[in-house]
Amino acid sequence: MKADIISIGDEILNGQTINTNASWMAIELNNIGIQIRHVISISDNKEDIIETIDKSLQKVDFILITGGLGPTSDDLTRDVLAEFFKTKLIFDQKVLDNIERIFSARNREMNQHTKDLAWVPQTAKTLYNDMGTAPGALYHMGNQVVVSMPGVPYEMKSMMNKDVLPYLRNNFHLPFILHKHILTAGAGESQISELLVDYEKQLPSFVKLAYLPGLASVKLRLTAMGSNQQMLEKTIQEQSEKVVSLLDKLVFGFDNDTLERKIGEILMIKNLKLSVAESCTGGYLGHLITSVSGSSQYFFGGAITYSNDLKMNLLGVKKKTLDSYGAVSEQTVNEMIEGSLQVFGSDISIAISGVAGPGGGSEEKPIGTVYIGVGNKDKKYIRKYQFTKDREKNIQFSGVVSLIMLRKFLLNDL
Amino acid sequence: MKADIISIGDEILNGQTINTNASWMAIELNNIGIQIRHVISISDNKEDIIETIDKSLQKVDFILITGGLGPTSDDLTRDVLAEFFKTKLIFDQKVLDNIERIFSARNREMNQHTKDLAWVPQTAKTLYNDMGTAPGALYHMGNQVVVSMPGVPYEMKSMMNKDVLPYLRNNFHLPFILHKHILTAGAGESQISELLVDYEKQLPSFVKLAYLPGLASVKLRLTAMGSNQQMLEKTIQEQSEKVVSLLDKLVFGFDNDTLERKIGEILMIKNLKLSVAESCTGGYLGHLITSVSGSSQYFFGGAITYSNDLKMNLLGVKKKTLDSYGAVSEQTVNEMIEGSLQVFGSDISIAISGVAGPGGGSEEKPIGTVYIGVGNKDKKYIRKYQFTKDREKNIQFSGVVSLIMLRKFLLNDL
Repeated sequence: MKADIISIGDEILNGQTINTNASWMAIELNNIGIQIRHVISISDNKEDIIETIDKSLQKVDFILITGGLGPTSDDLTRDVLAEFFKTKLIFDQKVLDNIERIFSARNREMNQHTKDLAWVPQTAKTLYNDMGTAPGALYHMGNQVVVSMPGVPYEMKSMMNKDVLPYLRNNFHLPFILHKHILTAGAGESQISELLVDYEKQLPSFVKLAYLPGLASVKLRLTAMGSNQQMLEKTIQEQSEKVVSLLDKLVFGFDNDTLERKIGEILMIKNLKLSVAESCTGGYLGHLITSVSGSSQYFFGGAITYSNDLKMNLLGVKKKTLDSYGAVSEQTVNEMIEGSLQVFGSDISIAISGVAGPGGGSEEKPIGTVYIGVGNKDKKYIRKYQFTKDREKNIQFSGVVSLIMLRKFLLNDL
Repeated sequence: MKADIISIGDEILNGQTINTNASWMAIELNNIGIQIRHVISISDNKEDIIETIDKSLQKVDFILITGGLGPTSDDLTRDVLAEFFKTKLIFDQKVLDNIERIFSARNREMNQHTKDLAWVPQTAKTLYNDMGTAPGALYHMGNQVVVSMPGVPYEMKSMMNKDVLPYLRNNFHLPFILHKHILTAGAGESQISELLVDYEKQLPSFVKLAYLPGLASVKLRLTAMGSNQQMLEKTIQEQSEKVVSLLDKLVFGFDNDTLERKIGEILMIKNLKLSVAESCTGGYLGHLITSVSGSSQYFFGGAITYSNDLKMNLLGVKKKTLDSYGAVSEQTVNEMIEGSLQVFGSDISIAISGVAGPGGGSEEKPIGTVYIGVGNKDKKYIRKYQFTKDREKNIQFSGVVSLIMLRKFLLNDL
């Protein structure tokens, strides 16, 4: 089964938006055995929309369209598709209810353009929008499917997961493509590939291994394709276990696991409570930890001590320590951990202090110098890192690396 | 003058690479008055390449192709183009010298496939590659230009800047295109479009207005195209000023401004220090504020009081308040602001408490219920919001909306 992805709107054509929607959709479709033939971006122009869809339908089974569904006058997609598929628009109370709910929650008045979004094409399946106002539409004609969704990424993703992908799985006979992701943290791509040199040689020809490097982490993807689902599942499982035995503690999880969530599980099992004391990360570590639902079970909270005053007043860091060693030092981070354990009453604490940049660097402590510590009342580990020259990257690295240190601490691997 | 951008290769079609090349090229072409009609990604397939180029040449003056120029067997672009334009390949010693230089610098041996890169199409202008091995080619037939470049971003960019853009400027009479972005927060797309109904009617035909909605914010883009650069600049400036006068305080900045940074500027001008008290956002607000370099000048830090204990111990929220009204309540947020002002010694504080979900919702306080408050020692404003059912979105909305409230507070607009 082949598909085209069509993005409608000027944002991509004038370069202001990078087409991340297309990459996301391509990965999701690949996962269920659908190959992408073309990714095409076009403007909100009626003739162009019709011509592009018409040509695609001569080549592929399935078209995914995003964009052009909003309430403004340049949004043409719904009407053009309805005309193309020779159907009329009918009023859908459920769509209007949803729009009303959103507007009243935001204390806003609906205007007529917004109300008009509740008119949907009669012969299409309406894709209700949980995350926004404009509904999508799924046309199924013969063996071909054309789906129209909003261009807002989270609205599109929600619609894909909830409606479009299940619909395709249920209505078409797709080949089996199995993926298994093995998630590692704390080692680089080259270090991991060295550990897997012999392993890669024994892989069966229908199984592929890919390295997907991330921030201080590497995701390994095993892909098996074929017609015998059971055999594929068994092979993928066996191969995955081999990787785990070779990489050992570098592996922290699989597939949709995240480091934050896996650490949360360990904290819950050990019944330990965590707190944080953040300086240069400014709340980013807390944000990572609390991105996990249920994190309130093991996360008390913490302090964002951006100023030296707060480091002293809130965490009890000594003025003498700050004066002698500076805020970015092993000594300050040490006292931040101690203060955090005491003030917040947690079992474990993480503390971070560094020079995120672009200001604040010195010869002794250049931009990217970050001290990260993790400890409990018995022991503390503090490490100095030298990250990048980029503020955003330094904040992200500090957050992820402190989680990797916490995981090692919890597994007695520091 | 109109152009198509064609990317050749599987990386984009399987989602592993996001098409940042296309955005970069689109911006560069827009800047010299070339409009992009389509951005198309296709695979390394001879028939598909020929068909796509053939169709594009029926519609546009100029085609930019990237990818498919490497030494491996799936790289077809050079040979397919030479066949399409009915020219033969000739040997170019300058290209081979460049390849030899690169390989000897890396201490690597050239193989025959690599040496073959020195064969270039006879009727095309060769685009020498300063950053890598494969040369590009520029075909100029009648009034149409087809350019083929490597897909490696820095090789492509170097070739564009050194050869392609100067060639286009010198050989075609191009119009000027100017963009101006007007950034708004606190109103939806439909509310803004109502305020601009009459405005849009008076826009000169050579100026376009586009709405680019974001999270609780809308970006407006004015685009002017023509031959008289001075006149365009004057018109864009006048039209931008009209929008600002109509939208008034909804406008927080222009072009590359961000809400966080503009708020930081106001705080610095007024010499005010900010602190935060975050519950359901878990550090995300602090992260937004500290994503701005130099934020330490106005941001003291704050507390992530995820647990009720920390709300009491760190911010002095009363047990009675939590027992009577709950952590997610106007009363609790009120005391969080007071505690934050007192404990952190800041002039202004923001406090957030809500149900991010997916757990913790009730009939009275469903998922997405968030109380956000901003205040100083004299006055406090607290609002109740009903955001979405999605944890991540609720955290993001809470962060952005609290910044919008802070901005209004600073401008006495609450």
